[in-house]
Amino acid sequence: MKAARIYGKQDIRIEDVEIPEPKDDQVQIKVKFVGICGSDIHMYAEGLSLPYEKNPLTGKTVPIIEGHEFSGQIVKVGQDVKNVKVGDRIAVEPILSCGHCRNCMKGLYNYCLNAVGPDGSGNFIGVSGDGGMAEYANVEAKFAHKLPDEMGFDLGALAEPTAVAYEGIKRSGLIEGQTVAVMGAGPIGLCTAILAKIAGATKVYISDVSDVRLAKAKEVGIENTLNPTKDDVVKKIHEDLPDGVDISFECAGVQATFDTAAQITTATGVIQVDALFGKSIDLDINGAIMKGHNIHTTLGYENAFPIVIQIINSNQETFKKMITKKIPLNETVEGIKSLQNDKSQVKVMISPEM
Amino acid sequence: MKAARIYGKQDIRIEDVEIPEPKDDQVQIKVKFVGICGSDIHMYAEGLSLPYEKNPLTGKTVPIIEGHEFSGQIVKVGQDVKNVKVGDRIAVEPILSCGHCRNCMKGLYNYCLNAVGPDGSGNFIGVSGDGGMAEYANVEAKFAHKLPDEMGFDLGALAEPTAVAYEGIKRSGLIEGQTVAVMGAGPIGLCTAILAKIAGATKVYISDVSDVRLAKAKEVGIENTLNPTKDDVVKKIHEDLPDGVDISFECAGVQATFDTAAQITTATGVIQVDALFGKSIDLDINGAIMKGHNIHTTLGYENAFPIVIQIINSNQETFKKMITKKIPLNETVEGIKSLQNDKSQVKVMISPEM
Repeated sequence: MKAARIYGKQDIRIEDVEIPEPKDDQVQIKVKFVGICGSDIHMYAEGLSLPYEKNPLTGKTVPIIEGHEFSGQIVKVGQDVKNVKVGDRIAVEPILSCGHCRNCMKGLYNYCLNAVGPDGSGNFIGVSGDGGMAEYANVEAKFAHKLPDEMGFDLGALAEPTAVAYEGIKRSGLIEGQTVAVMGAGPIGLCTAILAKIAGATKVYISDVSDVRLAKAKEVGIENTLNPTKDDVVKKIHEDLPDGVDISFECAGVQATFDTAAQITTATGVIQVDALFGKSIDLDINGAIMKGHNIHTTLGYENAFPIVIQIINSNQETFKKMITKKIPLNETVEGIKSLQNDKSQVKVMISPEM
Repeated sequence: MKAARIYGKQDIRIEDVEIPEPKDDQVQIKVKFVGICGSDIHMYAEGLSLPYEKNPLTGKTVPIIEGHEFSGQIVKVGQDVKNVKVGDRIAVEPILSCGHCRNCMKGLYNYCLNAVGPDGSGNFIGVSGDGGMAEYANVEAKFAHKLPDEMGFDLGALAEPTAVAYEGIKRSGLIEGQTVAVMGAGPIGLCTAILAKIAGATKVYISDVSDVRLAKAKEVGIENTLNPTKDDVVKKIHEDLPDGVDISFECAGVQATFDTAAQITTATGVIQVDALFGKSIDLDINGAIMKGHNIHTTLGYENAFPIVIQIINSNQETFKKMITKKIPLNETVEGIKSLQNDKSQVKVMISPEM
């Protein structure tokens, strides 16, 4: 089959590879759509996060098949599989986990202690094991989540980034009626703003340096857009909400946006960090203490996919606006580059069937 | 009356001052005991936190009567006071708050928006308004909390630092059966460790560079003491608890202890920051994300005194061990210096009656 395999920095090759039979607890899917994530860009541009040393769970080193945001249709099942069957349409939760370490046993399988390699490479297929940028993929049946009949495979491939945003909402403790600011209008920031509105937030601000991204925010229903290169974000928010927002979501991952989040968040409010950062940050810890701030972080998601699939299904028209381009597998690198260079691209989807 | 007034850096004077009649909503107390806090040391040594500009609530600038950890007996009541009466024995919750701003209305009166001065000086009497290092003090009746008959005034003066520790416990979300590490065995660290045990933590570690402080920790019932100048704290804790502790309490306020807290805290665990820091910290935010850490902070306490007084009363023998010296008011500066220089001192109490 054809697959997009990453060997290292700026080295993705479209190759013919064999796919093994699914293991007893796996299913084999015909991949329908696979989204390109910001982390795919970093893997390509900088060679980050890849298993240069053998991953303890998958036994793999580079090259690996990239892609962790994917959907497909089951074509084979291993002999122990009971929860799904051939023909089922599914979204893949791309977690690598052992299923028996202390974190897995707590339900925190996204922090599986046995999935992280000696080089720190991580807990996801498409990163530390073969993923979805291929015609077929074998995935663990427990991470195959059925899609409603009326929900397209493209929306199914949005379940993964939406789950990242959902996990941030969950960990932030957001409740109906609260006010929210989202730093960054990339895919995770946009999903977060959408989910905050669905969760009943009464005011949702979104901030980004790109007007194109802010136009997209308006398109998905977020009216309160702010551009820090033109607007005084802190002042504007305090004009509306004198004590600031209840929760800030850090979906940009730079010092400046983190500092803004700290300034606009109310006493005892939450700064929910969803974005990875390029480096460590300078934290004004006494300033945080003076406002009793809580800084929450999250990696991935746990037990979120069934919920997120229902949310997307109930809000199809909004989520469809997140998908800005569909490309064939052999244009994977071009797809990555379009996300690097064109702010009007939000979610580029690869279809191995195209 | 005699009072210890602070004018600025290294300038505390024992002076004769007039005390006004209590206002309609105040009580006047004869001060029985007033503890010296770490912040009193910083106020004296570095002149920090003082109202050099007029505090908006108290209208005061320096000099102010220092002291915010105090107990006393009511000798006069203002005409609107109904919750306490002359003769009542009380501990003082030394908060400055307007009672009507948005934070006060939320019950977050410790973050009162009208109590903070233009120079950032804060929300406490004894810091931005006259406090308890005096023979008498006027305090708001709503912040006068009755002591049980069987509880000494010295233990009553411990309610304030214990409330700081209690608020940290509360905000950390500690529940019975969890494991805890406390960074720093000063008064707040020791109180935190004591309260964690009372709350049912099954393992409580405490770390400090001073063996004298660790001996005190053992005296108050904390067996698992660690000295980072001799012990590999991270390794030792992981030997007992392979995935680390559920909650770390940062009660030392330096980069090294914060970093240790991050290393020993389990996935999705809490780093509860109770200590003020000398400067901003370098936060490995990606490291935090990889473990899904939550960093909680707190300033002071809200609605904690009645609870804390009951806890101290039920554990008198333990809390008595926190009080290491009692001195007269005119030895205030010597008391501060003894805390700076002698690690065997934990809580030095001033008695204006001595």
